[in-house]
Amino acid sequence: MLDTYYNMRFFCGSSHPALCNEIAKYLGIEIGHLSLSQFSCGESFARLEESIRGKEAYVLQTATQNINDDLMQLFLIMDALKRSSAAAIHVVMPYFGYARQDKKSAPREPISARLISDLLSSIGFDRLITVDLHADQIQGFFSQPVDHLTALPIFAEYFSAKNLKNLVVVAPDAGRAKFAKKLADRLSADLAFMHKTRPEHNVAEITNIVGNVKNKTILLIDDMVDTAGSVTSGLETLKKYGCNDEIYLATTHPVFSGPASDRLAKAGFKEVIVTNTIDIPQKKRFNGLKILSMAPLLGETIKRIYEKRSISSLFL
Amino acid sequence: MLDTYYNMRFFCGSSHPALCNEIAKYLGIEIGHLSLSQFSCGESFARLEESIRGKEAYVLQTATQNINDDLMQLFLIMDALKRSSAAAIHVVMPYFGYARQDKKSAPREPISARLISDLLSSIGFDRLITVDLHADQIQGFFSQPVDHLTALPIFAEYFSAKNLKNLVVVAPDAGRAKFAKKLADRLSADLAFMHKTRPEHNVAEITNIVGNVKNKTILLIDDMVDTAGSVTSGLETLKKYGCNDEIYLATTHPVFSGPASDRLAKAGFKEVIVTNTIDIPQKKRFNGLKILSMAPLLGETIKRIYEKRSISSLFL
Amino acid sequence: MLDTYYNMRFFCGSSHPALCNEIAKYLGIEIGHLSLSQFSCGESFARLEESIRGKEAYVLQTATQNINDDLMQLFLIMDALKRSSAAAIHVVMPYFGYARQDKKSAPREPISARLISDLLSSIGFDRLITVDLHADQIQGFFSQPVDHLTALPIFAEYFSAKNLKNLVVVAPDAGRAKFAKKLADRLSADLAFMHKTRPEHNVAEITNIVGNVKNKTILLIDDMVDTAGSVTSGLETLKKYGCNDEIYLATTHPVFSGPASDRLAKAGFKEVIVTNTIDIPQKKRFNGLKILSMAPLLGETIKRIYEKRSISSLFL
Amino acid sequence: MLDTYYNMRFFCGSSHPALCNEIAKYLGIEIGHLSLSQFSCGESFARLEESIRGKEAYVLQTATQNINDDLMQLFLIMDALKRSSAAAIHVVMPYFGYARQDKKSAPREPISARLISDLLSSIGFDRLITVDLHADQIQGFFSQPVDHLTALPIFAEYFSAKNLKNLVVVAPDAGRAKFAKKLADRLSADLAFMHKTRPEHNVAEITNIVGNVKNKTILLIDDMVDTAGSVTSGLETLKKYGCNDEIYLATTHPVFSGPASDRLAKAGFKEVIVTNTIDIPQKKRFNGLKILSMAPLLGETIKRIYEKRSISSLFL
Amino acid sequence: MLDTYYNMRFFCGSSHPALCNEIAKYLGIEIGHLSLSQFSCGESFARLEESIRGKEAYVLQTATQNINDDLMQLFLIMDALKRSSAAAIHVVMPYFGYARQDKKSAPREPISARLISDLLSSIGFDRLITVDLHADQIQGFFSQPVDHLTALPIFAEYFSAKNLKNLVVVAPDAGRAKFAKKLADRLSADLAFMHKTRPEHNVAEITNIVGNVKNKTILLIDDMVDTAGSVTSGLETLKKYGCNDEIYLATTHPVFSGPASDRLAKAGFKEVIVTNTIDIPQKKRFNGLKILSMAPLLGETIKRIYEKRSISSLFL
Amino acid sequence: MLDTYYNMRFFCGSSHPALCNEIAKYLGIEIGHLSLSQFSCGESFARLEESIRGKEAYVLQTATQNINDDLMQLFLIMDALKRSSAAAIHVVMPYFGYARQDKKSAPREPISARLISDLLSSIGFDRLITVDLHADQIQGFFSQPVDHLTALPIFAEYFSAKNLKNLVVVAPDAGRAKFAKKLADRLSADLAFMHKTRPEHNVAEITNIVGNVKNKTILLIDDMVDTAGSVTSGLETLKKYGCNDEIYLATTHPVFSGPASDRLAKAGFKEVIVTNTIDIPQKKRFNGLKILSMAPLLGETIKRIYEKRSISSLFL
Repeated sequence: MLDTYYNMRFFCGSSHPALCNEIAKYLGIEIGHLSLSQFSCGESFARLEESIRGKEAYVLQTATQNINDDLMQLFLIMDALKRSSAAAIHVVMPYFGYARQDKKSAPREPISARLISDLLSSIGFDRLITVDLHADQIQGFFSQPVDHLTALPIFAEYFSAKNLKNLVVVAPDAGRAKFAKKLADRLSADLAFMHKTRPEHNVAEITNIVGNVKNKTILLIDDMVDTAGSVTSGLETLKKYGCNDEIYLATTHPVFSGPASDRLAKAGFKEVIVTNTIDIPQKKRFNGLKILSMAPLLGETIKRIYEKRSISSLFL
Repeated sequence: MLDTYYNMRFFCGSSHPALCNEIAKYLGIEIGHLSLSQFSCGESFARLEESIRGKEAYVLQTATQNINDDLMQLFLIMDALKRSSAAAIHVVMPYFGYARQDKKSAPREPISARLISDLLSSIGFDRLITVDLHADQIQGFFSQPVDHLTALPIFAEYFSAKNLKNLVVVAPDAGRAKFAKKLADRLSADLAFMHKTRPEHNVAEITNIVGNVKNKTILLIDDMVDTAGSVTSGLETLKKYGCNDEIYLATTHPVFSGPASDRLAKAGFKEVIVTNTIDIPQKKRFNGLKILSMAPLLGETIKRIYEKRSISSLFL
Repeated sequence: MLDTYYNMRFFCGSSHPALCNEIAKYLGIEIGHLSLSQFSCGESFARLEESIRGKEAYVLQTATQNINDDLMQLFLIMDALKRSSAAAIHVVMPYFGYARQDKKSAPREPISARLISDLLSSIGFDRLITVDLHADQIQGFFSQPVDHLTALPIFAEYFSAKNLKNLVVVAPDAGRAKFAKKLADRLSADLAFMHKTRPEHNVAEITNIVGNVKNKTILLIDDMVDTAGSVTSGLETLKKYGCNDEIYLATTHPVFSGPASDRLAKAGFKEVIVTNTIDIPQKKRFNGLKILSMAPLLGETIKRIYEKRSISSLFL
Repeated sequence: MLDTYYNMRFFCGSSHPALCNEIAKYLGIEIGHLSLSQFSCGESFARLEESIRGKEAYVLQTATQNINDDLMQLFLIMDALKRSSAAAIHVVMPYFGYARQDKKSAPREPISARLISDLLSSIGFDRLITVDLHADQIQGFFSQPVDHLTALPIFAEYFSAKNLKNLVVVAPDAGRAKFAKKLADRLSADLAFMHKTRPEHNVAEITNIVGNVKNKTILLIDDMVDTAGSVTSGLETLKKYGCNDEIYLATTHPVFSGPASDRLAKAGFKEVIVTNTIDIPQKKRFNGLKILSMAPLLGETIKRIYEKRSISSLFL
Repeated sequence: MLDTYYNMRFFCGSSHPALCNEIAKYLGIEIGHLSLSQFSCGESFARLEESIRGKEAYVLQTATQNINDDLMQLFLIMDALKRSSAAAIHVVMPYFGYARQDKKSAPREPISARLISDLLSSIGFDRLITVDLHADQIQGFFSQPVDHLTALPIFAEYFSAKNLKNLVVVAPDAGRAKFAKKLADRLSADLAFMHKTRPEHNVAEITNIVGNVKNKTILLIDDMVDTAGSVTSGLETLKKYGCNDEIYLATTHPVFSGPASDRLAKAGFKEVIVTNTIDIPQKKRFNGLKILSMAPLLGETIKRIYEKRSISSLFL
Repeated sequence: MLDTYYNMRFFCGSSHPALCNEIAKYLGIEIGHLSLSQFSCGESFARLEESIRGKEAYVLQTATQNINDDLMQLFLIMDALKRSSAAAIHVVMPYFGYARQDKKSAPREPISARLISDLLSSIGFDRLITVDLHADQIQGFFSQPVDHLTALPIFAEYFSAKNLKNLVVVAPDAGRAKFAKKLADRLSADLAFMHKTRPEHNVAEITNIVGNVKNKTILLIDDMVDTAGSVTSGLETLKKYGCNDEIYLATTHPVFSGPASDRLAKAGFKEVIVTNTIDIPQKKRFNGLKILSMAPLLGETIKRIYEKRSISSLFL
């Protein structure tokens, strides 16, 4: 089995060992040997413990709560790979952090997502593999090819199996409507979205729901859930609009920072379905949380890249 | 007066002489001397007819129907400026073409807006000055500073003067809602937007209007109007929803390609208000078209850049 | 047959479908699937309709009367190829436009040929394949390898077969003498060239002919013919110097802009021999025009590049 | 006073506010307005709160225990400065972290110090101002000018004032001998250094002292003290060799990680003299710790850079 | 006088001290202090002996017989300038060596002139000032501005003063005709050129002269004279064609390698007029050699660049 | 045998033909065909005499007394390789010249070693193979992989075979101690080093020896010997300290410039062991000089790079 992947090695930063193991298992390969440490002075360190000369390297590092450490560790691994004559460096970043700062919302801000692209490029890499970027335009921040995967087929498969009646896929705001629509189409479900507006001037902003949710089963969907403030208040609105009690929440990236787990645990969702692009520590897990694995999709993507076969055909 | 601008020169590509003249007048300067031509074999040519050594150059070129010729001419002017020892090259592109192809909508597409950024960068320039980019993320396609102006204050001033009653600012789709909201806030007007949805599965897609337009005066707004298909069909929907007869259309970039002028002339708008980021030839003009000038804003921006003063304070 | 070229794909811009088909036929391959269009607003668009992941891409685009559109379309195809993980991008540009502006003839001009090189490089490509560059120095404008082909063997073969007596190869000016000499040597023909001089000061410039053309059969040769002004006036001079009635004109690149076809049709050449580096529309063709195909040479070059074999040995 | 520095602004990352304040005071200027924050998801953020257009920016960020956060924050500030049209970006990094990984000590390691240089360069900056780099060669990792300051004159002044008799400056290992020698020369003191050797093969490594320390007052010096292991064991050796009880330790960079403070507090140094290139939190301070300020030197350096005057003459 | 040039410094490599002194004298400035040496192991070395911080540096280095040493020394000076915070680096290379290898004359050759441009660019510089490049296209090898001076006005002035009758300016081959023509026009002289041709096939190549030289005074002109083979044989031909005894040779760059001086001394020229772009050692000088100084032109060019005034107007 | 190396070619600059031949013999391959010359005007020239299209090129050039010529020739070969479509360029520089100028020892010096890296990078190459760099940090001057070989195993093998009793490996100064220690460990020998110090202030600097050399056999070792001043004076010191008469000197790079050979011949070393990273001309050789070949190690390294196998395992 290893012979099939003779010319590649798969390395893993310290951000998500569980996902790495799953992908390695999917591919039937061993994870590349890598020493990772952090000195007491705070500096990160990385050393390859095997020859990578002339081989293609895939490096997985996702963004966690310690995103700056994750990034610096990734940079150090990439530098070591480059200096050790890797034939190619493929960066696998299931959750691409700093993605929300993809434009200047106010004058004199950085464009952090472009900055990450520039930092990665300064070391040199050949491809980014990532999942559900916050904005499609982020692909244009890169000069390198980006294999942009989506968790939508995984969500679709999961909900299809449930065979839910009267399902409406709901986006939490207008900007996410397109993302929700893709899932609704796959599930042959109806579509709705929430948006905040002011029906008359000087009247308080209220949350509207476009589309019919009355007595419907709800699948609220977003690309990421950070502090969970907007999705839990969205649930309130949906109830107010008379949806039935089955409210599902699906999100690709469970950032779950600050009060997120608490809020979600108490909010009253029937299920919260996420993927494992980010590892959720045991203490942040709660009843009703369901984690679907991206490992088969990421593994298959790596396999096809290695074999120089189409990725887009995976998503037809 | 010229002494004030001793160390700069303002050059103009052939895409919009009227706007150039207005800006030059605003600044009280002469336009830089430049020979432009196109040979019978189709090749463009440019030659500076004065010394630019050590001076800051501002070059205005907007995108027209001949966008590829406009771009190549701009590139040639920039190359000539660089080789003639200009101290800085500031590109003024009121309408930034190719902006809608800012992401891959389908696999294996180019990201044209990023490509334009790369082409400009390969020659070398110091700043882009542009108006109402189709997506804010396009700023992140550049490593150079982008002075991103907006026509909204100009529209706001124009409509404030009309003192319209019961005004609702309407965005033609959800993606433009944020743009519309900024104008609504400036006008203390209500906000609404249209969106296409499918109320039930297997039912034809219909256009909804979010917000109340009944018996209201309408200001439909978009960043650009290309063939005018969606805004004219939007007008039909608005009428169906019972708005009153005063329907205004405002758009920053009057691309007006193909049937646009015909459609707009016949659609029944009370006024169609545009800016002059793109020149509208006489034969494309129609009754009810009102062109507001960006020249004072662009001129003031150039002035402030030259004097190293804040641009963002222009938009407070 | 396709198996031989398993790892490459040949794409064609819209500038010269006939040449593309011939080359594909020579190689025994299908042309790569590519959607090309131009929107009503003037913007070009390109989308690959098949996977290019890990394959070598060859893209043919020559310069036509719409050279700026040709170039932008080429850039978009290249951007799509890069973002779709092509292993290499080989640009095939049989006629390299903007080649005559290869230096500053006057102060403050661009060097357009270098600019084209910079624009191509900003996207990224691996090699240029081109034919009879206007100046050999243009190769030095590139950092990438340039496979610089010549049509001279094709012309030599064509004229050898005619077995013409008393043949003199004539260059239209001193700068082209070297190009003409290479052909003369292959044909064992005599050489001459025209040049303008002023025999005494304050006497009008006249065209001289260096070498003996009296009662000779003439083969006038140039790398390109644009408006055909100089070659038709050259023909007059040759007649005045007493050459016989058989005057042939051979040129690699039939730019044929403006009055060229008319002039050539009426000038009195026995034959005008060109190659198909540029497509000549039916209405520009005339009696006596003979088009020799570069397809076998270009096809063989692509084949050898793909097989990593020497190109220069093709021209021994 | 502010008029003098009309064309520059001094910004401070969050790593060392006290030093920033001191420098600002030295220069008689206000610190630039900058919003810094870290979101609950771990992402850093920075926004300039004033116009920097056309001004020179100096940004101070030193390396602390949270070096990866410090670096990412610095990168974001730099990106914001670049996009806000700063005329120049001068990075002031009193302690340059990751400096010890300046070579591959074993195969397949990164060269972290070069990596930091590459990351900084990818954003763009004009100069690095830093103090006592771990190896002089690190200057060669940069293409930009490096103003490399040293704390030695400050130490020299401090010890000269003490007028110590029988002083020997001691380096903790051979590699630091040159650094120690420069101080010894300034103090007209004797020089010694420690080194580990194996007097005979198969005999345990012992620490030797080169030079005479018997009954001498000792000034042990190093560029940085991290966990303080080697300097405290060095003190033991010095005592064994019969130095007198007055043992001083001087170090430019008080990294003081892990057990450092404890060790130093108990080791028996008469004084531990450090500079404030790194902030030492109150709980890490101990009796006998003396902090000398680099602020006047850094301030004077900034002043001279701004005034385009020589820095090296500061150290004559 | 020094105040005028407060913000610049003029440095000189070791290739041509006499020219440097003349230029410094023209400008009324002192030459910048620079230590230059070559170690016994063959390595070159350079150190600036004064502060260049924030100043514009002009560095003069011409190509001599030791061109590789000249270039490496220039690179080292440039590196020192860059690292010492020079505001700009202007390279003054009166004779640009390696210029003849400006294209591939045969397969698999380097393009040396482009290589030199790449090497200079890798260090970074702002402008090249040079005289009479071998081919105008070499300007296109640079992305930086090139101030391309010519010695023609100096030759014109020199010969005008002689008031020669019946003067013909002669180019040694067709490629140089354009260069000769510019001088002929300035002198209101006739023009001729030599070229080698083969009047009939299988007949030996002979040198023709185009234009009338019979009983004329001759001014043979070339951009450079290397071994002097072609100009001395050219003189024989001119005599054969019956020119009178007054034959002048003018050349910008007196490379004078190998047998050049001997040949020229004996050839029978009335005068050999050269410029001092290259220093001619005393032992290579001969009777009839006349050296015209480029110092005023180079000095005036530096002056105007410093003052940001037009250079091209110098040559009207 | 050639089939094994089908896809690579080994080219040799003119600096060290003997080493090239040995390596070629080791690999069982022919040396690539290359025309090298130097024109009488001093310019270097190189032309490949065979196709390198798609092949990996290895180019050997070491630094000699004519290091500037060596470097320029190398650059020209690399440029020719790049333009001839080599798949990769591996630079083999056994002795990396300019390595001692790896930092600024005084203000306003160049960092020559970094400069060489920049010049090489501007042409483009894929890897540097070199031996015993003067400082390990020089690897960080490169962005490309550096295969850094060492002669230590060769010295170890040579001296092991001698089976010397009471051997001490001695470094000539503290900076070289680490290099000497590696050899001492391989030979199970004792270690010592010399250093200059001033035991009391105002007393003349004397050379100390750390470690016991009394009655010992000495192996003095350094990475390079240039003028041999320090090693011959070191020998005097060693004798003064009572070592026995057997004093060996080993050095990787026999630069041997100026008086080196004379000094070494007369100094009284029992043997001077060097490698052939630099060719020693016959007239510089002397009794007791022993040259060990690096060819097998360099050949094996090339072999393993070509076969994409580990190099570090060569040195375990």
